Amino acid sequence: MMDELRIAVVGVGRIGLTHAENLAHRVRQARLIAVTTSSAERAEAARRRCGAVPVYETLDRLIESESPDAVIISSSTSAHVRNVEQCAAAGLHILCEKPLGLTLEECARAVNAVESAGVKLMMGHTRRFDAGYEEAKRLIVAGAVGRPVLYRSLSGDVDPPPPSFADLGVSGGLILDSMYHDIYLGRWLMNDEIIRVYGEGGALIDADVGAVGDVDNAVVSARFAGGAMATLTASRTTRYGHDLRGEVIGDEGAVQVGRLRKTPVRWLDTSGVHHDAVFTTPERMGDAFVTMVQSFVDCVLDDTDPPVSSQDGLATLAVAIAARHSIQTGAPVEI
Amino acid sequence: MMDELRIAVVGVGRIGLTHAENLAHRVRQARLIAVTTSSAERAEAARRRCGAVPVYETLDRLIESESPDAVIISSSTSAHVRNVEQCAAAGLHILCEKPLGLTLEECARAVNAVESAGVKLMMGHTRRFDAGYEEAKRLIVAGAVGRPVLYRSLSGDVDPPPPSFADLGVSGGLILDSMYHDIYLGRWLMNDEIIRVYGEGGALIDADVGAVGDVDNAVVSARFAGGAMATLTASRTTRYGHDLRGEVIGDEGAVQVGRLRKTPVRWLDTSGVHHDAVFTTPERMGDAFVTMVQSFVDCVLDDTDPPVSSQDGLATLAVAIAARHSIQTGAPVEI
Amino acid sequence: MMDELRIAVVGVGRIGLTHAENLAHRVRQARLIAVTTSSAERAEAARRRCGAVPVYETLDRLIESESPDAVIISSSTSAHVRNVEQCAAAGLHILCEKPLGLTLEECARAVNAVESAGVKLMMGHTRRFDAGYEEAKRLIVAGAVGRPVLYRSLSGDVDPPPPSFADLGVSGGLILDSMYHDIYLGRWLMNDEIIRVYGEGGALIDADVGAVGDVDNAVVSARFAGGAMATLTASRTTRYGHDLRGEVIGDEGAVQVGRLRKTPVRWLDTSGVHHDAVFTTPERMGDAFVTMVQSFVDCVLDDTDPPVSSQDGLATLAVAIAARHSIQTGAPVEI
Amino acid sequence: MMDELRIAVVGVGRIGLTHAENLAHRVRQARLIAVTTSSAERAEAARRRCGAVPVYETLDRLIESESPDAVIISSSTSAHVRNVEQCAAAGLHILCEKPLGLTLEECARAVNAVESAGVKLMMGHTRRFDAGYEEAKRLIVAGAVGRPVLYRSLSGDVDPPPPSFADLGVSGGLILDSMYHDIYLGRWLMNDEIIRVYGEGGALIDADVGAVGDVDNAVVSARFAGGAMATLTASRTTRYGHDLRGEVIGDEGAVQVGRLRKTPVRWLDTSGVHHDAVFTTPERMGDAFVTMVQSFVDCVLDDTDPPVSSQDGLATLAVAIAARHSIQTGAPVEI
Repeated sequence: MMDELRIAVVGVGRIGLTHAENLAHRVRQARLIAVTTSSAERAEAARRRCGAVPVYETLDRLIESESPDAVIISSSTSAHVRNVEQCAAAGLHILCEKPLGLTLEECARAVNAVESAGVKLMMGHTRRFDAGYEEAKRLIVAGAVGRPVLYRSLSGDVDPPPPSFADLGVSGGLILDSMYHDIYLGRWLMNDEIIRVYGEGGALIDADVGAVGDVDNAVVSARFAGGAMATLTASRTTRYGHDLRGEVIGDEGAVQVGRLRKTPVRWLDTSGVHHDAVFTTPERMGDAFVTMVQSFVDCVLDDTDPPVSSQDGLATLAVAIAARHSIQTGAPVEI
Repeated sequence: MMDELRIAVVGVGRIGLTHAENLAHRVRQARLIAVTTSSAERAEAARRRCGAVPVYETLDRLIESESPDAVIISSSTSAHVRNVEQCAAAGLHILCEKPLGLTLEECARAVNAVESAGVKLMMGHTRRFDAGYEEAKRLIVAGAVGRPVLYRSLSGDVDPPPPSFADLGVSGGLILDSMYHDIYLGRWLMNDEIIRVYGEGGALIDADVGAVGDVDNAVVSARFAGGAMATLTASRTTRYGHDLRGEVIGDEGAVQVGRLRKTPVRWLDTSGVHHDAVFTTPERMGDAFVTMVQSFVDCVLDDTDPPVSSQDGLATLAVAIAARHSIQTGAPVEI
Repeated sequence: MMDELRIAVVGVGRIGLTHAENLAHRVRQARLIAVTTSSAERAEAARRRCGAVPVYETLDRLIESESPDAVIISSSTSAHVRNVEQCAAAGLHILCEKPLGLTLEECARAVNAVESAGVKLMMGHTRRFDAGYEEAKRLIVAGAVGRPVLYRSLSGDVDPPPPSFADLGVSGGLILDSMYHDIYLGRWLMNDEIIRVYGEGGALIDADVGAVGDVDNAVVSARFAGGAMATLTASRTTRYGHDLRGEVIGDEGAVQVGRLRKTPVRWLDTSGVHHDAVFTTPERMGDAFVTMVQSFVDCVLDDTDPPVSSQDGLATLAVAIAARHSIQTGAPVEI
Repeated sequence: MMDELRIAVVGVGRIGLTHAENLAHRVRQARLIAVTTSSAERAEAARRRCGAVPVYETLDRLIESESPDAVIISSSTSAHVRNVEQCAAAGLHILCEKPLGLTLEECARAVNAVESAGVKLMMGHTRRFDAGYEEAKRLIVAGAVGRPVLYRSLSGDVDPPPPSFADLGVSGGLILDSMYHDIYLGRWLMNDEIIRVYGEGGALIDADVGAVGDVDNAVVSARFAGGAMATLTASRTTRYGHDLRGEVIGDEGAVQVGRLRKTPVRWLDTSGVHHDAVFTTPERMGDAFVTMVQSFVDCVLDDTDPPVSSQDGLATLAVAIAARHSIQTGAPVEI
């Protein structure tokens, strides 16, 4: 039995570098053995922050030279499925950043590859491991809200991404990249599946994002199989902070997740009462990144099921794609 | 020039009695001269709380005997248009509780009657006079949020109304009775008109409400003419309190209205930190009822335009009817 | 049996005018019949806001001409005892603003006069009627905090008063005028008497206040007979708002009173999250002024004991005087 | 030049084990090389959580065998000075948990030893590194509050410690162990020295703590050299949570530090609105432990002055001893 997992990280952009650092310094029973990136700058950053870790230009070469036990895939979404297939072929366990792919078809291919290889695939749904959402789930399961009837969520990013990222063919756009989180959380918190969506969206603020077919703000109405309803909002222009909120209202009570504050300080002067806000995902999510990766390491070492399965990834993506389609067509979409 | 307005109140149910009391005790330059009700119990309550005010069974008899200057119409919604026509015929200025009627056609009749008679008609949109929404409007107008792109609202009532009230032919149901407020506030705060809505709704908790054709929970997505988007939620089952919230997110900031707390107290014990919540409209709205009626009195005495016009009432109702229609048909509705 | 109390108001400065307005418009079973003031400007304000009420230059003339049933004394503190004696001699019931006087000796005289005359004397401790403090008391009595061991309070005014008011011979200064409230609330909430105090104070910001012997900021430590402890803070320079807070910590929990917010709105931009604050006593206290006067009217009409007795006034003043003495001498003072 | 500091931890009780774990996993350019403890159970815990680290029964033997570069002293307070002398004699840099000792005399000895040896001594004032207090300091220095005139603090622990710890000869008792933090923070935030204190304290709840001469609740009034005032509260019986608060009020504004909440969730039901609270120091302080140790490591490797000096430790202890003396004697104490 392994008592330490030797893990590589594919792609060390913003999130990938966070994973690499956490593997290097904070996750128990795990060792960061290598990363991939084709950017000299990112390679340098990875070496500086992760203790002289080996850097490879391609995943193939990394696998060949280092024989990792497992891989965290944080490449761009358009590369996910190919990377999953490579890792599965090499018999590596996989933690893959969401979404698994850009179409349900390619995701099905990835799932097949994983199942044929008999390796584990866990989806990187970070917010699921945030202390706030975990406590909300615990309260709902404990009956604190009675029967859930409404799910309301908001995901706000401070600035639109560059068009190269917003491109529907790269990240999947606002709905697949950002509202995806809230769709997953809604399914998980409500313990139900979404069967119909209707969306409104537009590139109201950032014409560049519009030029590549994406929107910068959107609202989606959704219906669960059990009759409950949802309203989801995603915005790339909440300039006041990285505003993540979730709420479940039941017939006996409600739970609300979300706190925009960064430090436990407020200041007061003649113009009012003020406090700061979080502006980045690590500020808001804190230990959730570590908890998620730890959870992956534990499920591989203990040979248990991943807490977020590939089926979760597929079901969530199906809703996200339907929501994006509704925004594009102006008609409600049944799932 | 009058220096005091002699006002009658038509209907002294929950809201009408509040108006009558405020006229009797708290509104300046106004005098409560009579009320109508056919209920002996309500007549008694009105006399007890408003200083032995004369009570009439019908509006006609009240007008004949008391010759008021103005009337506040707080009868059931289905009686509004007829009451407006009676008052207009008698040359009385009118403050009419929302909505003006149950169909756009009958509302148009009421507006014609008022215009022919040359009397003032102000709509009773109480929340518009709440200190919170007024401050939000001020901030938005001052540019605090930049260009508004998202409007999010929630109206939560603690319990479903009796089916006799929920009846679409009496109150208009959840959308016309409750979400109506948020539609109006959205139009006002965003300074724009809603051009398309899509709704999901259901009688999830209260079968009695469903039996008369109404829903107890609903979410609506909406699109403004200028491109901005909205998501509106109405619930008759927020058991934890009378939860009214509104939020406008712009491309430079945001404003949020809403505070559920009743008293400025919190208590703390080993099970957590706790505070109470408001459960009734007067608890939440406070002076807004007085401010609204004062505003009506002032506009009559000063001969200025009502701050909430009959056109506001019609435009808001048009959206509410469209939203209800979308919930019933499952299709988005253009307005 | 009277069914309406005819009340005069002595002194229509800031607080007195509030009382007069509330009597004129909002208190049930009470009628404002006259006020006294020697200021033409205040007389005009009283007439404008209280419906052409008669104004007298002196209390004697008012009593002679109007024969009131009761009086609210809101003259300057240095005139309280004389006014109480005048009213007692005329057989009038009295609601007297705090403190009853500037020395325990003169207060004893006032109490004697009242007892001889057989009239009621209620102390004007407004905060006692604030919904927040009332709920805190209810929770403590209900056992929510267990055995109370710590009382912490803060009273913050936005600006120092003019030296003519700060003068120890006029208002009694910061401790008798402002911290007095917190001393009373502490005695009431803890249901115990203070037996020792130690204070530190200084005129740190406003030399004019220092020139008349007063301080603009002070902290006081206190000990209750039952062993519990208190720390009280008073400041004339909380520029950010009228900050009133109270807190009781027991061996099983705690209650905290206080909320600085004026409207239920917050706004958010790149510089942080902001909300407004209350700056005046009516903004913070809201209906407490009405509740207090209503309570006085009720106790006279129903012939019950005033909820805040003259003994409460004396015991509170004794502590306030001791605290002021400790600040002046630098030594703890036993009471 | 060293590029990694080899550090030992003396004493692996609650705080010492936290330091050891952070050195093992989270502090950059530092390596945990050994710990001391005479408890088999603690030795086992240290090995389990810090990767098979060598454990010694005594500091002497550890120094002899491992030749560390630096030491974190988290033994019981009564052992601090002796440990400091041992480490100084061996030429080791020192991070010593607060307070440095139980008397000013023995602390002076420790400081002499350190100065003679030419090693660095940093005091372990964790809260100084909390993001909240750091931001408060930044705001005050930036002028956000104007001239500071009041400092108010509260340190609340959920339960009294065992009498063996409360013993004045072991931990120094409530004032030296707990209020010490707030004294230091007050000096730092106000940028001024305390010159006089007066305290009230008692063993109101826990007779066992009283039996060893300590108190379980206390309030202290203090005066700064520049005229500003302070009120400090310490409690061992804030059952509702580990409640740490600090506040500076200036003549132009105020800053408040403190947030009791653990997770960003609130739940709402018919009994009110609820959220959880933090109950332990790591929950409240989060990364402050890592930040503090990192700061020590950096100052040794970069040969800069420690951010919290031994003089800070002595000045803070002098105030704490005076406050404890005032509680014992009932008289104010000049420092």
